[in-house]
Amino acid sequence: MFFDNASTTKVDDTIIQNLKKINDEFFYNPSALYSEGLKTKIFLEKMRKDILKNLNAEDYELIFTGSATEANNLAVFGTLKKNIRKILVSIGEHPSIYNTVCEIKNQGFQVEFIKLNNDGSVDIDDFKNKMTSDVGLISIMHVCNENGAINNIEEIVNIAKSINEKVIIHCDGVQAVGKINVNLDNLNVDMYTISAHKIHGFKGVGALIFNKKIKLKPIIYGGGQENNIRSGTENVYGIYSLYKAVDIAVNNLQINYNHVMNLKNHFIEKLENTGISFKLHSGNNCSPYIMSISFLGCRAETLLNLLSDENIFVGNGSACSSKKSGNRILEAQGIPMSEIESNLRISFSKYNTIEEVGYLIESISKCVNDYLLKIKKHF
Amino acid sequence: MFFDNASTTKVDDTIIQNLKKINDEFFYNPSALYSEGLKTKIFLEKMRKDILKNLNAEDYELIFTGSATEANNLAVFGTLKKNIRKILVSIGEHPSIYNTVCEIKNQGFQVEFIKLNNDGSVDIDDFKNKMTSDVGLISIMHVCNENGAINNIEEIVNIAKSINEKVIIHCDGVQAVGKINVNLDNLNVDMYTISAHKIHGFKGVGALIFNKKIKLKPIIYGGGQENNIRSGTENVYGIYSLYKAVDIAVNNLQINYNHVMNLKNHFIEKLENTGISFKLHSGNNCSPYIMSISFLGCRAETLLNLLSDENIFVGNGSACSSKKSGNRILEAQGIPMSEIESNLRISFSKYNTIEEVGYLIESISKCVNDYLLKIKKHF
Repeated sequence: MFFDNASTTKVDDTIIQNLKKINDEFFYNPSALYSEGLKTKIFLEKMRKDILKNLNAEDYELIFTGSATEANNLAVFGTLKKNIRKILVSIGEHPSIYNTVCEIKNQGFQVEFIKLNNDGSVDIDDFKNKMTSDVGLISIMHVCNENGAINNIEEIVNIAKSINEKVIIHCDGVQAVGKINVNLDNLNVDMYTISAHKIHGFKGVGALIFNKKIKLKPIIYGGGQENNIRSGTENVYGIYSLYKAVDIAVNNLQINYNHVMNLKNHFIEKLENTGISFKLHSGNNCSPYIMSISFLGCRAETLLNLLSDENIFVGNGSACSSKKSGNRILEAQGIPMSEIESNLRISFSKYNTIEEVGYLIESISKCVNDYLLKIKKHF
Repeated sequence: MFFDNASTTKVDDTIIQNLKKINDEFFYNPSALYSEGLKTKIFLEKMRKDILKNLNAEDYELIFTGSATEANNLAVFGTLKKNIRKILVSIGEHPSIYNTVCEIKNQGFQVEFIKLNNDGSVDIDDFKNKMTSDVGLISIMHVCNENGAINNIEEIVNIAKSINEKVIIHCDGVQAVGKINVNLDNLNVDMYTISAHKIHGFKGVGALIFNKKIKLKPIIYGGGQENNIRSGTENVYGIYSLYKAVDIAVNNLQINYNHVMNLKNHFIEKLENTGISFKLHSGNNCSPYIMSISFLGCRAETLLNLLSDENIFVGNGSACSSKKSGNRILEAQGIPMSEIESNLRISFSKYNTIEEVGYLIESISKCVNDYLLKIKKHF
């Protein structure tokens, strides 16, 4: 049973089933000049438009990339100019932002990190302190992949633009799209990253959505595809999965949200009944899809392995990122080391059921009790 | 009927059919610590090893990328160091090398272009003249995507290393793998690029194979996947298609080669019989998969469209690259402008049949004659 959906998800059957049709009709190169190439190009542009429509981003542009990681890299490297010297980033960012800004820091840019609140959201007071008129670029995620914290992006944009109306604001929306309401027109950010494989599309495809006024410098050069911003033959199959995954997720957003919220509430209620000592690090204003939770007295990796033996798969830290990134974020939340070491990430998808959550609780209860008993015997 | 296989190819049915199984068994994140994550990681490593084995590259390393274009960019940007100031590149390279070195030229590196022979292969004498002991990086493609010319990579490597044993040599093998014999141990290059979608795998996946002694600097930062060289969750589905496509192509290399050579010979013989005026720009030592051919007196784009109406799809220039790249290469071959303007690229795959080639000849004959008749009437 899979409870590590913040790391990756299973591809929707519909997408897999439609792939033969896509291969028959649209295997052509969208840059080709003959009728079938043009037909494929039209299909590609329809998908691009539909994704933007589903995110209320019809005034934005969209560049398909080989991953959300690449889109985040493009957002940072692509906007760096001589006149941008100072960059603000939350300390809670995914490694694809965090490690990218660390690299540009090495190149001589000034990078400042914004603190987190206990619940993992960005500390707005700290942001206000650090947001000066010389800040040229900001990157703050919509939903944190470690703890599900939802950042108030509108408020952040308002504060930032009131201080420097020219500041470029990027938002990593990988854990938000299809899970909480994403309305780019309201968010008013300049750039927004999305991913397919977190919402039941293929791995290897993402996109950067951006304001038409932003001039992006490529990080990959070549044949000039994607409006000269991202070269390489367009991955029509992967892009189809992104388009379809966004469409399915956005059009079933409320149903899935309610279902997953129900799973989460059921989980917490049942977990409390077991009498096991735990601490939830996801606050009230967070996505129900992600729970950061410490099982006091248990080492996370050992517990994860015990659960794996019970056919229960959960995360510790962010599995799609470097092994230590979890610590950076949990530490920034002010969580004591003992709780960090016992921290698991349980993340739901629309496919999880109440019955599965029942089995999850049983397994956690069994594994935690066995674990603690063993330790007791040992000493 | 599809005769633009140098641009892209249709994905093999086997790959499409196996995708459900891959999704069921290996949708997990290879970086995840639980059993199914490890199982997926083992699958990934097995595929990596098998690709290397199929190219007799067992002493090399391999990094999966989001395209061959990205792999070519990584080969150039990833090896640039302060001590590398001079770079040699053939003028016949794909835009993913050509435009990348133009970018680094803008950044202050010294880039020199090697001339081509009439048949599109690299001019070895010009290479010898330009290969000086201060050249740090060389990039020369194995098979040219415009005309099918096969470069003598072993000879180029021997010359280069005899002048500077430390020079890093990259070879773009996108049009070679699975089509002509590729033995990396013999070629002795330091880096080699491969692609899935040119050999009936998915778009959106490629790889850079490289000598263990090469230390590559990433162009995409993040979670540290692919040995910290290329971050982003591993595209297991795409990688499967690359592995499978290489395996099928390499293990059927001679059969397919003979079949395609037969198609080419049949095509040329039949075309001569039509009495149409044409000029072949692919020489004797070239891949039978690609033919560069001028239909004298016809504008290529118009002819391409007329053929498209007959359900015949051929290329002009390289469809997977910028519209003008074909000209750069054809000009370097010393082809007169009138022949460049009437140049088509016809490229076969294992799926083309003798019957299809018969229909291709009929259609070309009809379209060229109609075209020339119309022009005659017009004047």
